[in-house]
Amino acid sequence: MKHYKIAVLAGDGIGPEITREALKVLKLIEERNDVSFELMPAAFGACAYFATGDAFPQATIDICDQADAILKGPIGLSHEESKKIPIDKQPERGALLPMRRRYNTYANFRPVSLPKALAHFSPLKAEIIGEGIDLVIVRELVGGLYFGQKESGINEQGLRYVKETLEYDELQIRRIMHQAFKLASKRRKLLHNIHKSNVLKSSVLWNEVMEEVAVEYPDVTVYNMLVDSAATALCLNPTQFDVMVMENMFGDILSDQGGGILGSLGLMPSACIGDDKAYYEPSHGSAPDIAGKNIANPYSMIGSVAMMLENSFDMADEAKNVWAAMQAVFSDGYSTADLSKAGSGVTMISTEQFGDKVVEKL
Amino acid sequence: MKHYKIAVLAGDGIGPEITREALKVLKLIEERNDVSFELMPAAFGACAYFATGDAFPQATIDICDQADAILKGPIGLSHEESKKIPIDKQPERGALLPMRRRYNTYANFRPVSLPKALAHFSPLKAEIIGEGIDLVIVRELVGGLYFGQKESGINEQGLRYVKETLEYDELQIRRIMHQAFKLASKRRKLLHNIHKSNVLKSSVLWNEVMEEVAVEYPDVTVYNMLVDSAATALCLNPTQFDVMVMENMFGDILSDQGGGILGSLGLMPSACIGDDKAYYEPSHGSAPDIAGKNIANPYSMIGSVAMMLENSFDMADEAKNVWAAMQAVFSDGYSTADLSKAGSGVTMISTEQFGDKVVEKL
Ligand SMILES: CC(C)[C@H](C(=O)O)[C@@H](O)C(=O)O
Ligand SMILES: CC(C)[C@H](C(=O)O)[C@@H](O)C(=O)O
Repeated sequence: MKHYKIAVLAGDGIGPEITREALKVLKLIEERNDVSFELMPAAFGACAYFATGDAFPQATIDICDQADAILKGPIGLSHEESKKIPIDKQPERGALLPMRRRYNTYANFRPVSLPKALAHFSPLKAEIIGEGIDLVIVRELVGGLYFGQKESGINEQGLRYVKETLEYDELQIRRIMHQAFKLASKRRKLLHNIHKSNVLKSSVLWNEVMEEVAVEYPDVTVYNMLVDSAATALCLNPTQFDVMVMENMFGDILSDQGGGILGSLGLMPSACIGDDKAYYEPSHGSAPDIAGKNIANPYSMIGSVAMMLENSFDMADEAKNVWAAMQAVFSDGYSTADLSKAGSGVTMISTEQFGDKVVEKL
Repeated sequence: MKHYKIAVLAGDGIGPEITREALKVLKLIEERNDVSFELMPAAFGACAYFATGDAFPQATIDICDQADAILKGPIGLSHEESKKIPIDKQPERGALLPMRRRYNTYANFRPVSLPKALAHFSPLKAEIIGEGIDLVIVRELVGGLYFGQKESGINEQGLRYVKETLEYDELQIRRIMHQAFKLASKRRKLLHNIHKSNVLKSSVLWNEVMEEVAVEYPDVTVYNMLVDSAATALCLNPTQFDVMVMENMFGDILSDQGGGILGSLGLMPSACIGDDKAYYEPSHGSAPDIAGKNIANPYSMIGSVAMMLENSFDMADEAKNVWAAMQAVFSDGYSTADLSKAGSGVTMISTEQFGDKVVEKL
């Protein structure tokens, strides 16, 4: 029997309630497979900061270090609440970025997927969605502006200023390109390389390395697209895309636009993969406004479990079953209040009921 | 009689054909007002590079220096064609950025506007557009990554790398904030401040200065929104926005997303305002694929003329007439092939016919 240790970081806001549902799914998978999951819960994010003075406390680091995979809920506070924590201790700078850096999870996979049957969730017209949206954003996750040096102070004219750096070297670019090309090879063999080479020199290097890597994947067709054009195209014609690769900040913005075209960030799970460790998280924030109300859809968290099953535990078939179970719950006409409006023809269920129904389908 | 000198830079691709239509409108305005426009055409962009070796040649600089306002068409080449020009001579780095820097046009106003009657252009469902989209993106245009130092070479590990800097000082932030707050005061008194303060220190300073400026505009309500959330929100609920203010790169991406939600970048004129000089340009590229086909809609170029009339020549009434004339042509059921599909119920007309009809309506 295989045995896996999973660090479970429920996070802030809606984190605990959607994590609870995801764990129900994990439990079922465990029961019917020759596998055991050892769950190791740990504090992470604003909740950890308030409890220990540290958003990523040493005890949590130890647990994550030992884990075979990490399941992480959303973290963070509202704009106003955030101000109560010193800037460098805030959950993003104090926990999330250190986690990404520590485990060097450079490849972030963010599926933006909406089967035709769920087109009603989307703000886009049915004719734009056609047979469904099914693309993956491959975001570089440990470089660029996020991790560059930062300098601030008073300049010669006596003015406050901030200077931050965006840095990439060829190795950082090459490894994310290989991830993107490999994924494209397994899918529609289309890769959109997103850049801003008409302004950024880092994009010039990015494109150079892309071309070098491309020769190793002759069956993949590459389209080069400026990041601004991509933002237009994601609204006008999202079905043209299959795999899109881009640097960190571009990936942050365009993947949230991806959530926008689906109808909700609640439909956005993700996998953050390094050479030795991977963690799985929803792409969205902790939604403090709806926390504790039992209305947040656990799709993104259960989807993150599916990505964990496939990537970390080599259980691609069970992963497929999980996706299918979630689609089936939607197809049966059920939804949650964060995704759908009352009176839109769906039967409104709670976070908990959604999790239960997914388990039933499974 | 007032006399104004206008530098006319038709640019590349579809630039000349849409500029031609914009000039028809200017001519009519001149005929019926106590004003004369002296048009000073000049080469700018890839066309200028191929003719003179310089995308912003000295002769053009001289003309722009003398002009009371500059009307600029789109510039640039396709990805492949661009490679034929040395990187620093390419039209963006060789002409557009130098123009912005020379005239210190720090405030870029990009209206994202779609009256309810034109909702069919948009990829968004009618219920999302409601009574119409009517927001303005105020983009800082001469700071940030676009103008920071850039360094590239081989690092200690023997790897090619690039390092660029994103820099802002409080003065740069304060002046764009004043522009945004002033505009908000004249409109719905709502300002969305777009930032990424959970990661970028420049956004922390940005928000600090925003709060300092806000006290001077007590009637304007400020909402702080992360740039990634804004990308989601522009798809899900664009009508919540009135004025949005943001730094250079964020403005580049979100304004193109704005074109996406309208249905085309062809509906995006813009004004780039400095303390002493302003220039007006479509927000879109030169669309080499449809250049010379007489199918590009001249809306963005004629709209840029309207913004010039209002901002540079104090002719707000004529500006309103120009907007109304363009809406009227659309309302009469006419459109161009870049905006509408054949068979979608519109009467398809050419670039030239669209310009003529706008002039008729005026
Ligand atoms: C919380 C924040 C730091 C994070 C990011 O910007 O990467 C989030 O927006 C995301 O996309 O995972
Ligand atoms: C052409 C390019 C340099 C420019 C920019 O990035 O500013 C354009 O995309 C724009 O938005 O005006």
